[in-house]
Amino acid sequence: MSDCVFCKIVKGEIPCYKIYEDKDFLAFLDIAPFVENHTLVIPKKHYRWVWDLPVDEKIRPNLGDYFSVAGRIINHYRRVLGIDFVSSIVWGQLVAHAHIQILPGPHNLALSWQRSKLDPKKAEETVKRLALSPPSF
Amino acid sequence: MSDCVFCKIVKGEIPCYKIYEDKDFLAFLDIAPFVENHTLVIPKKHYRWVWDLPVDEKIRPNLGDYFSVAGRIINHYRRVLGIDFVSSIVWGQLVAHAHIQILPGPHNLALSWQRSKLDPKKAEETVKRLALSPPSF
Repeated sequence: MSDCVFCKIVKGEIPCYKIYEDKDFLAFLDIAPFVENHTLVIPKKHYRWVWDLPVDEKIRPNLGDYFSVAGRIINHYRRVLGIDFVSSIVWGQLVAHAHIQILPGPHNLALSWQRSKLDPKKAEETVKRLALSPPSF
Repeated sequence: MSDCVFCKIVKGEIPCYKIYEDKDFLAFLDIAPFVENHTLVIPKKHYRWVWDLPVDEKIRPNLGDYFSVAGRIINHYRRVLGIDFVSSIVWGQLVAHAHIQILPGPHNLALSWQRSKLDPKKAEETVKRLALSPPSF
């Protein structure tokens, strides 16, 4: 979609702090994070809602593939950050392109849900620390 | 785990308002819902965190299978309830057994995060309306 900000990120027309990329999915830091290391995982193809990806496993990429990628990133974060608790939310009102939000913990539902502003210098360090290559299989 | 309330629900030692069941996963109404039709999807096998399920697609059931089941339920809810917006959260502090929380919309992050108490009579009607059979393939 030509007016979709996430589609523009996929096409490279808008820069991002990239965490992960393969042929179907892209992950990058949220520029208005709820919590530190707040990350978005999106399908490169435009879907309005996460649940619009096909659930049929014979179709690729499907919803299971999408969450497997999110899971790989989350487990990488758990190892690198030394934490067990990583929550995720699928909400998706602000940008009309499917996105899984990764919120590395600890934190709880009583968090303020106030967005801060991502610091560019810190974001570059975060990318160095947390970026993950696609699996080689 | 013998002292896990969700394992007891899986074994039938504690009743639940069942929405979906197959050999690997179970979904039921949350008895202390944040929103109407609040539903939990759990793996029958005990895992502490959602992200502890294997991401390797050669292992079954895996994380992708888990979210595919959640996606099937969510898309069923969208159709039956006539809504687009269904959010989900993976949080998991209250019960130490992996669970995906389905929160059918509309609602937003400014919701109070106050739990109400599920009314048994209403819950039975909800189960009749929303219960989903496993796919037959």
